[in-house]
Amino acid sequence: MKQLLVLLLLALLVPPTAYAQDTRAAERRIEFPDIPGYLTLKCDLHLHTVFSDGSVWPNIRVQEALRDGLDAIAITDHLEYQPHKDDIPHPDRNRSYEIAVESVGDRDLIILNGSEVTRDMPPGHSNAIFLKDANKLLIDDSVAVFREVKRQGGFTFWNHPNWTSQKPDGVAALTDLHRQLIREGLLQGIEVVNNVTYSDEALQIALDYDLTIIGTSDIHGLIDWQYNVPYGGHRPITLVFATERSAAGIQEALQAGRTTVWFNNTLIGKEEFLAPLIRASLTVKEAAYGGDTLVLSVLIENTSDVAYLLDNQSEYTFHASADVLTIAPHQTTRIDVKTVDRKTSLTLVFEVLNAVTAPGTHPEITLEIEVE
Amino acid sequence: MKQLLVLLLLALLVPPTAYAQDTRAAERRIEFPDIPGYLTLKCDLHLHTVFSDGSVWPNIRVQEALRDGLDAIAITDHLEYQPHKDDIPHPDRNRSYEIAVESVGDRDLIILNGSEVTRDMPPGHSNAIFLKDANKLLIDDSVAVFREVKRQGGFTFWNHPNWTSQKPDGVAALTDLHRQLIREGLLQGIEVVNNVTYSDEALQIALDYDLTIIGTSDIHGLIDWQYNVPYGGHRPITLVFATERSAAGIQEALQAGRTTVWFNNTLIGKEEFLAPLIRASLTVKEAAYGGDTLVLSVLIENTSDVAYLLDNQSEYTFHASADVLTIAPHQTTRIDVKTVDRKTSLTLVFEVLNAVTAPGTHPEITLEIEVE
Amino acid sequence: MKQLLVLLLLALLVPPTAYAQDTRAAERRIEFPDIPGYLTLKCDLHLHTVFSDGSVWPNIRVQEALRDGLDAIAITDHLEYQPHKDDIPHPDRNRSYEIAVESVGDRDLIILNGSEVTRDMPPGHSNAIFLKDANKLLIDDSVAVFREVKRQGGFTFWNHPNWTSQKPDGVAALTDLHRQLIREGLLQGIEVVNNVTYSDEALQIALDYDLTIIGTSDIHGLIDWQYNVPYGGHRPITLVFATERSAAGIQEALQAGRTTVWFNNTLIGKEEFLAPLIRASLTVKEAAYGGDTLVLSVLIENTSDVAYLLDNQSEYTFHASADVLTIAPHQTTRIDVKTVDRKTSLTLVFEVLNAVTAPGTHPEITLEIEVE
Amino acid sequence: MKQLLVLLLLALLVPPTAYAQDTRAAERRIEFPDIPGYLTLKCDLHLHTVFSDGSVWPNIRVQEALRDGLDAIAITDHLEYQPHKDDIPHPDRNRSYEIAVESVGDRDLIILNGSEVTRDMPPGHSNAIFLKDANKLLIDDSVAVFREVKRQGGFTFWNHPNWTSQKPDGVAALTDLHRQLIREGLLQGIEVVNNVTYSDEALQIALDYDLTIIGTSDIHGLIDWQYNVPYGGHRPITLVFATERSAAGIQEALQAGRTTVWFNNTLIGKEEFLAPLIRASLTVKEAAYGGDTLVLSVLIENTSDVAYLLDNQSEYTFHASADVLTIAPHQTTRIDVKTVDRKTSLTLVFEVLNAVTAPGTHPEITLEIEVE
Repeated sequence: MKQLLVLLLLALLVPPTAYAQDTRAAERRIEFPDIPGYLTLKCDLHLHTVFSDGSVWPNIRVQEALRDGLDAIAITDHLEYQPHKDDIPHPDRNRSYEIAVESVGDRDLIILNGSEVTRDMPPGHSNAIFLKDANKLLIDDSVAVFREVKRQGGFTFWNHPNWTSQKPDGVAALTDLHRQLIREGLLQGIEVVNNVTYSDEALQIALDYDLTIIGTSDIHGLIDWQYNVPYGGHRPITLVFATERSAAGIQEALQAGRTTVWFNNTLIGKEEFLAPLIRASLTVKEAAYGGDTLVLSVLIENTSDVAYLLDNQSEYTFHASADVLTIAPHQTTRIDVKTVDRKTSLTLVFEVLNAVTAPGTHPEITLEIEVE
Repeated sequence: MKQLLVLLLLALLVPPTAYAQDTRAAERRIEFPDIPGYLTLKCDLHLHTVFSDGSVWPNIRVQEALRDGLDAIAITDHLEYQPHKDDIPHPDRNRSYEIAVESVGDRDLIILNGSEVTRDMPPGHSNAIFLKDANKLLIDDSVAVFREVKRQGGFTFWNHPNWTSQKPDGVAALTDLHRQLIREGLLQGIEVVNNVTYSDEALQIALDYDLTIIGTSDIHGLIDWQYNVPYGGHRPITLVFATERSAAGIQEALQAGRTTVWFNNTLIGKEEFLAPLIRASLTVKEAAYGGDTLVLSVLIENTSDVAYLLDNQSEYTFHASADVLTIAPHQTTRIDVKTVDRKTSLTLVFEVLNAVTAPGTHPEITLEIEVE
Repeated sequence: MKQLLVLLLLALLVPPTAYAQDTRAAERRIEFPDIPGYLTLKCDLHLHTVFSDGSVWPNIRVQEALRDGLDAIAITDHLEYQPHKDDIPHPDRNRSYEIAVESVGDRDLIILNGSEVTRDMPPGHSNAIFLKDANKLLIDDSVAVFREVKRQGGFTFWNHPNWTSQKPDGVAALTDLHRQLIREGLLQGIEVVNNVTYSDEALQIALDYDLTIIGTSDIHGLIDWQYNVPYGGHRPITLVFATERSAAGIQEALQAGRTTVWFNNTLIGKEEFLAPLIRASLTVKEAAYGGDTLVLSVLIENTSDVAYLLDNQSEYTFHASADVLTIAPHQTTRIDVKTVDRKTSLTLVFEVLNAVTAPGTHPEITLEIEVE
Repeated sequence: MKQLLVLLLLALLVPPTAYAQDTRAAERRIEFPDIPGYLTLKCDLHLHTVFSDGSVWPNIRVQEALRDGLDAIAITDHLEYQPHKDDIPHPDRNRSYEIAVESVGDRDLIILNGSEVTRDMPPGHSNAIFLKDANKLLIDDSVAVFREVKRQGGFTFWNHPNWTSQKPDGVAALTDLHRQLIREGLLQGIEVVNNVTYSDEALQIALDYDLTIIGTSDIHGLIDWQYNVPYGGHRPITLVFATERSAAGIQEALQAGRTTVWFNNTLIGKEEFLAPLIRASLTVKEAAYGGDTLVLSVLIENTSDVAYLLDNQSEYTFHASADVLTIAPHQTTRIDVKTVDRKTSLTLVFEVLNAVTAPGTHPEITLEIEVE
């Protein structure tokens, strides 16, 4: 508690200085381990600035991302929706991206050039990222825009298919146009999480049509306010499993569909990427019988930001909890297992309740334990 | 946050005064609503003092209970195990109870006279409460002790049947002697939770033999330290559903088996009492469609200390979460339900993951919602 | 603590909802009592947006002010310094003000039209507020600008006279030009606090030349980050003692010099306004001798945000502290006074260490106490 | 904040484990640096247990002290006042000390054998510590008791001379008997702080008669409750400046008068020991001019638990505060000094407002600064 008190003292007493603020900012960094074969890159691929309908200059988006410890952001102002155009008549749709790049300077954050293609349904709104020139997307015909993105080597995903302004029931559903875009490889991903919303139906579409699963903040105002970051909240992000930490690395991974979404305290993704991420988060540090007992104390370290909610699937029962338990983030948690007789090894199996691989479907995690 | 800051300021600055401390103590009170037909009384039925192997005078047990907002405690020093007897040779086994009663004065806390009957297995340790004279239990023959308790009109429950000192595998299991005691009505309850431990097997025994489900702190040291109370933890207690707030009311309820245990963030009890408690905790305050959408915002108020972990069982999906969600304690939580078409009423069904009615079994809660 | 825990739970668990956020925002409101004869209005009179070198659209300034519970803000973008002009070429210097006004809608916040007149030294930078048309200030001659402000009925104050970019030693000092402007009534106030800086020398100038004492955030980025608001910090503001809550009321009060600055945990102002503010903050709620003792318990309620640091100046000593003590904000604090013999009334006198009426000078507060 | 959140999570979620509790306990350790020539030992020399009128077994006093990181405690049950004697008739007045020693085991805490000699005024209550046999103090004549303590080589200090039960006005004052005891070397120290009270008059007596300055908790209940430890409070202790960390070391230091009291956020002591302690707490880590300015940034590290309240006494003014400022505990604070011209060295002088060397008298601290 002393650390908290000191933190608060700095703000309260006469006078606070700017000196200790870096520490505080560092505390909010989002942290996930890498998985076998891939780096885990933290990306927010949908952000707005004053260059469309956002409320901040691009440098604020950069600072928010640095504070959150992100690896990459895409600046994706609306192409067509320009409510500030009387004040900001700039005709260059790459402009907010360029300012963001300049604002990063030599700090370690990847900026991706993007645009939100803003159409009525269908196809609704889509984000095109990894653009060479956003201006070339200013085309009337919707499908032609998607083709231009592809021509530039970009990646396109469907934004908030559950958006009630375009779909009052909030139920994401493909139209023929979407199916055509997918068939032609022009629509490669889908937002399963947008801002404060989640869509089971969008997840099902992603699985049915092998689209890349995306979660974004779609922030217009301030990240800290929208997600209560100072009180422990976090923006939704897409964890991208890449072979290198670069725009190219992210692009290849997105095209290959290697993602998981981190939303509130929930992970959403295809089992082949989500399961390794959970597995990489949790390490059995120690397993030993306590004294003369047959109760095995298993110490599990969690190196991720997730408070894992686990539901016991094995035949063993526990000495300190019923079947549902929590593995706190960035902590080592002890689970006391009643093994009945003395084991030299055993297997624990849990359903991970706050991880989702399909609507209503949670992955299992298997922990192989060697007793010391 | 300002309230927290002020709280901390009071401790940090020059000088703190005693004035604001009552507020702070009040914050830790355990709170649960009554259920239809019964008062919900918060009881800790297993406590030790210096009169056996505890580390505090009985007045501290009283103060802890008042701070926790309990309705009743039983002082249950060991009858036979008296490690302090060289220093405290007092022969009267009712003594710690009497001191506790005197210490309560005119404050509103019920003190029950009890003893821990401390035997090797079988039958192991048991708590006898509602005693008229604890001294009369100092009998060699175990069964005779139980009979004396019954003669005094007392209630007896089996303590920590999962205790590894008496059962190294931690697996609660009845012996023939236990079965005999149960048959004769001499053993009426069983600790499913003791201190920091929980036992699925004890719960099964309670269900199989219709024993009253009990959870206790079995505190020897300090409640605050053992359960991290200042950081939000709480001691295990038995919620007793009584027709009146009195020792007699508690006794009748315990004999009738009307209890639920509150342990960490988990409720454990027979479905017939646990389900109404959950139901009484949650109230639908409002249900209205948002704007022109078909997304129904349902406001649910939670008047209990439980952070309910709910798993969606209905056909509806949600606009802001996957199937598992949390209803924070003492808050109104909004659930946005996608009803597809406009409803005037609907039914939400959830499995309550942190409530246990049998090993691996969670109750369902049904919320009938009338749309405004 | 439970309230804090619930607050944190909302951010941590699955899923948080937007529902409880208003409460949180409310907690940060800056609060001060009115003083006899005047309303105490909380004003930040120096703010930047993207329309000069700030990083946010004017609506963010409005939201920050509403969250902080301010009564009024002045939007004061640089007249001459326009680093975003390639992107925002708008020629109308009233534009950011107009957007802010529109953004307020029917919410209760007064927006003042201002401009930062941005010149080399002398006269350096100045803020002109209550402008009718900021465009008319685009004049080369510095003095002519000030005259135009006066012609529009505006109020002008010298910004950050301690700014090391214009005065490397940080020591505010008047030039002949400043003296001329003051003499002609063209320079009416001076920033004693700007952003994270304070100037004893600027305070002395204010006193010597009867300028209005001003403190401002001069915010370019985000208020929350710059002042650690979520951790209890606050932006510097000017408390304006006005006869009505309106732009006209603020203008009259500023011209009459009725202000106090609230900076970190320090109040700075002329004694005639600072002393009544402290006095209005503190109320003796109760004074009674404890039991058979001659120790008088005095309960003092503090209705302001200030943690007052008091240094005892009376002959009495205290039973629970040495001579320096703290009166926590928004709390009732008890001071136990040793009166030696039984009094029916007495006078306590304190130097208020974190209030400044001149460099190195702290006001005294006198508490007349009637014993019950 | 993440650390706090994790801490809270451990208490809130399903299930908490005992695993992380040690960390939490560690956070409350009281910390002070050594001073030149001496170790700074943290001692509480006045504690009660159930063996007089306290509410805990001696092992709780040991655990509280270990959690607080103390070096030594004295168990000082009342010799004559034995309200529990019907239950604890033990005739050996060394008994609670012996139990405490046994309870420490191989942990690193020094236990001192003591007794509170409990008489009417004069001489009132006194603590005798470093006793060989407390039973030998059971003598009717008060002066004879003090002589017996001296015969055993013990150290005696006057307890709570401001106690309103014995001195209704709370004003500590010597009697002839006290003067005689002091003259004969039988009364060597005086409590300037007892529990939640402080006495300017006791401090003056200590100075006038060269008595050792003592501050104690005089705890009867629980340290955590009495001093709000989980919320950042701390018990009053005596910092003893010793040449070795042992009972003998403490005894020699107490007899030589080398102490300072740590009470709430205030230090009280003779200047010759208090000044070096403050000096040892604060280290100038860096001093450099910022950019092209003449503002010198001085980084000061504070390795103590004290939030120092400093009042500027030098001719320099500051760029970020008025004359009163705070140096937060266990932090590095930056002070921006306006030196007017470029210095290679300079001297800062502060009055330390929350340190007391005589009634109403605060020590000065001088910081010699070499510019880099």
